[in-house]
Amino acid sequence: MKLKERADYLSKINSGLYGEDFLLTWEKSESDLRVILEVAAILKEMRSANISTRLFDSGLAISNFRDNSTRTRFSFASASNLLGLAVQDLDEEKSQIAHGETVRETANMISFMSDFIGIRDDIFLDEGHKYMLEVGAALDEGFEKGVLPVRPGIVNLQCDKDHPTQSMADLMHLTNVFGSLEALRGKKIVMSWAYSPSYGKPLSVPQGIISLMSRFGMNIELAYPEGYELIPEIVDIAAVNARNSGGSFKINHSMSDAMRDADIVYPKSWAPFNIMKQRTQILKSGDKAALKELEQVCLANNAKFTDWEYNEDMMKSTRDGNALYMHCLPADISGISCRQGEVSAAAFEHHRIQTYHEAGYKPYIIAAMMLTNRFENPGEILNELLIRNRKRVG
Amino acid sequence: MKLKERADYLSKINSGLYGEDFLLTWEKSESDLRVILEVAAILKEMRSANISTRLFDSGLAISNFRDNSTRTRFSFASASNLLGLAVQDLDEEKSQIAHGETVRETANMISFMSDFIGIRDDIFLDEGHKYMLEVGAALDEGFEKGVLPVRPGIVNLQCDKDHPTQSMADLMHLTNVFGSLEALRGKKIVMSWAYSPSYGKPLSVPQGIISLMSRFGMNIELAYPEGYELIPEIVDIAAVNARNSGGSFKINHSMSDAMRDADIVYPKSWAPFNIMKQRTQILKSGDKAALKELEQVCLANNAKFTDWEYNEDMMKSTRDGNALYMHCLPADISGISCRQGEVSAAAFEHHRIQTYHEAGYKPYIIAAMMLTNRFENPGEILNELLIRNRKRVG
Amino acid sequence: MKLKERADYLSKINSGLYGEDFLLTWEKSESDLRVILEVAAILKEMRSANISTRLFDSGLAISNFRDNSTRTRFSFASASNLLGLAVQDLDEEKSQIAHGETVRETANMISFMSDFIGIRDDIFLDEGHKYMLEVGAALDEGFEKGVLPVRPGIVNLQCDKDHPTQSMADLMHLTNVFGSLEALRGKKIVMSWAYSPSYGKPLSVPQGIISLMSRFGMNIELAYPEGYELIPEIVDIAAVNARNSGGSFKINHSMSDAMRDADIVYPKSWAPFNIMKQRTQILKSGDKAALKELEQVCLANNAKFTDWEYNEDMMKSTRDGNALYMHCLPADISGISCRQGEVSAAAFEHHRIQTYHEAGYKPYIIAAMMLTNRFENPGEILNELLIRNRKRVG
Repeated sequence: MKLKERADYLSKINSGLYGEDFLLTWEKSESDLRVILEVAAILKEMRSANISTRLFDSGLAISNFRDNSTRTRFSFASASNLLGLAVQDLDEEKSQIAHGETVRETANMISFMSDFIGIRDDIFLDEGHKYMLEVGAALDEGFEKGVLPVRPGIVNLQCDKDHPTQSMADLMHLTNVFGSLEALRGKKIVMSWAYSPSYGKPLSVPQGIISLMSRFGMNIELAYPEGYELIPEIVDIAAVNARNSGGSFKINHSMSDAMRDADIVYPKSWAPFNIMKQRTQILKSGDKAALKELEQVCLANNAKFTDWEYNEDMMKSTRDGNALYMHCLPADISGISCRQGEVSAAAFEHHRIQTYHEAGYKPYIIAAMMLTNRFENPGEILNELLIRNRKRVG
Repeated sequence: MKLKERADYLSKINSGLYGEDFLLTWEKSESDLRVILEVAAILKEMRSANISTRLFDSGLAISNFRDNSTRTRFSFASASNLLGLAVQDLDEEKSQIAHGETVRETANMISFMSDFIGIRDDIFLDEGHKYMLEVGAALDEGFEKGVLPVRPGIVNLQCDKDHPTQSMADLMHLTNVFGSLEALRGKKIVMSWAYSPSYGKPLSVPQGIISLMSRFGMNIELAYPEGYELIPEIVDIAAVNARNSGGSFKINHSMSDAMRDADIVYPKSWAPFNIMKQRTQILKSGDKAALKELEQVCLANNAKFTDWEYNEDMMKSTRDGNALYMHCLPADISGISCRQGEVSAAAFEHHRIQTYHEAGYKPYIIAAMMLTNRFENPGEILNELLIRNRKRVG
Repeated sequence: MKLKERADYLSKINSGLYGEDFLLTWEKSESDLRVILEVAAILKEMRSANISTRLFDSGLAISNFRDNSTRTRFSFASASNLLGLAVQDLDEEKSQIAHGETVRETANMISFMSDFIGIRDDIFLDEGHKYMLEVGAALDEGFEKGVLPVRPGIVNLQCDKDHPTQSMADLMHLTNVFGSLEALRGKKIVMSWAYSPSYGKPLSVPQGIISLMSRFGMNIELAYPEGYELIPEIVDIAAVNARNSGGSFKINHSMSDAMRDADIVYPKSWAPFNIMKQRTQILKSGDKAALKELEQVCLANNAKFTDWEYNEDMMKSTRDGNALYMHCLPADISGISCRQGEVSAAAFEHHRIQTYHEAGYKPYIIAAMMLTNRFENPGEILNELLIRNRKRVG
């Protein structure tokens, strides 16, 4: 009943997601983001109710990871499997892919029977998103020219600008913890830089969080030590979003100050935008000595901010001393994964299971992105699955 | 008919396997082991009869190989596929897993849509089994806290203590060669150390064999040169089992003497327990020179026992000069895979095809371990499959 | 209708492909090659019409790539998935396979639940085809002795002699461009060596092309600088085929001369047969200095023929200045993938999309090879799929 009613309701909403790649949340309408959340929620309930959501009798989902990944890799594999697709990895160590002609050609060569391509390309600033657009343009051409029977949908599994499967899973987590999207209105969320002994962590998580959460009337506080800027254009997007949605956006250079009365905290390390720009240029030039030097400078600078650790003292200053702690995992936990890190062991342990729940939404978010890319009326197709009522197991 | 009757009979036996990991055969009741064997046999016949045994419309089986493997990797993939599951490898070179926090977290991160996790961790004495327990505890927590919709079942694909998918496949082979489990009563099986030019082979196969075969009234003879002990606690288990089942257990330090009148022989190299203990400690300390030295000492000691080779002369002294030869493969064959090894080329060739048959049971044993973990009444579900009668091919 | 009629027609043709490995096109009758083309075409249309061609409810297809591959790897994965099979890679870095006993054993160990094995082994002259025969013989033995419930079919994904999935896909492309197999009669196809800065490219593509296209009444012109011979026995096969099919076969040592009035051109680099023979021997001996020296000699010799580049000038001399350009991809494109290569950027761009179409037939050709190996009457089984009329998506 309940699921059927939800699917019925969904079938009346116009989805703008059909046939569109999912690259950046700020390219999507609020209504479309709500559709994704609802499709993901229905898929999750159906699986729990042992109802098969296999929509593809055969078909491939290609994963193209240009950076290491366990969580997102498994999430992509899970989502693909949930819909009936087999995953085929494009392993570039084995297959040598590059830009330009090679991308254009390879995108087609792997897609003759592909339904989706999931891409992670987050190492180089100003490169990952471009690469996805390049793949997309190649697929458009291949489809238009009749090379590809289907235009595979692209899912951004993290680029230099955004990490939409992460931020949307995070948002789904928030709606579950607080009860609804509407309940998030007026809540204070602090996206804070945190100390880590490592270097060169991508900016896409904080950028993804501030640009997405600002669309639902939340009060965003972005905290970082001076110099640890994000990409300015994306910070601007967040500020405009906040204004439009009736929320607020503020930058703070004190972690402990920012945490005061926070409902939600997201302490996470990232590399400064300026450093990442230099790093990209050095990487392109191939100057290893310069790269090493940059790393040293950066680590030395990080070391000035070891007190940017989220701990129980800071926790106490948050709303009711118990703000929801979020992290994309793995966190750098002081005394556990490193000597000194993003979060104290005690503070992390308070929220550990919640971070697992948070991560658990990602496979469903990815599946929802795939489903809405391929089916014009997601509610209708979910309804068909409910009527079919095939068991997943047994 | 026949299959239906067997499934009917099976459906009346109480299975204690439901929801339980399969880590060590000695934790399982004799009745449960019989259930596994029977489920495996029925699955094998169904496949031969082109009846699909696909029980999962979608779902993942995770493989976590912490040591190289071809046979077991393919067996796990085959078993998963037989039941309808897609395999997703957790490749630790790519994803960096470790103990403690990382294991706890990763176990959950890979399991949001997993039905089973197959683990091989056999390199370090006193580590592999512990790791599996640690993963299991993490999954228990995740399931209890609602992070995981299903508690994935763990299948031990070889640890430091036991290799149950191997020993159970071996037992299935024996019941087929001798006609039944009951026919094994009173048979003499010799689990013998054999010479190999390599070093550091795990103890889990011999330990698995003596601890399992001793439960069915067989006369076990464990043969090895002095110093090549197995884990004492597991040898004790075998001795107690033999006593309880009406069989016998004996240690012999002469290979040729042990072989006399044997019905079944299993000549295979392993590293001495004491060496393996030292090796684990050295590996942990990271002292590469010490490791190299230990290897030299060990190889030099091995070299004293090159006459521990199973050959046609020994064969002659076995029952009717024709004991069943067993090996988990690949065997070190003198003059073929090495200059001097575990078995002479002629002796191996006599039994080569039988060793292939032996190996062929493993996929079905693994599938049976999975099926009985997930279905409370295995006979009933097999009956449903027989009634469904869907073709595997065509 | 149309599809049904084609399947009906096909069902009346006797197929000699049932139960036979697909290793070399010249071992197959012309009728059998036509069956493959027609099955591939029907599968392609069915997929476009969203009709599922899943014939296997479960089952494995093993891929054994002994050389790098992206295109063929994805084609094999696509074909397997199209029929309902899961791909399991035999990764030899992880599993250490060799010749002799190991091949015999491993072939069986991976095949207990395998339906097909796809093999690429093209690095060593006089080795790849032999390896496939060796695997085949091992599978025959395993099946005869009851080790394997099914004799897995082998598909040659490129060996030292032939590349049948490439040449058959190329032929399928030609029949689509020119309208039919019959329309190819009398057409001039130029298989030409072309300059590349790389060294040691296999001979199997040109050998596959001349030996296959010569069977359909085409006029074959094989062009290469003196010294760049192919395997003489295969050149002989092409010459005989041409005579028998009413076509012609000619060798030409001038690229520009060969191109005159060509209907189809296939400019592609390869290493000279004599060099490849020496290379195999040196590789076996493990003499790295000698190998390096051979490479230098070879590259120096190549460098004499940088004018063997297909460009717009040559294009002009072909039939209507617009011969169909073919390539197995990736091509070495001057100024794009290398400074100077097989084809000029402008000439390639004229035909780029056509080369994508060409590549797009390969998954269907592989699927057709699998289907005809397993089903005695391919037309009948395709008819059953049409009647079943299950959707692939949705």
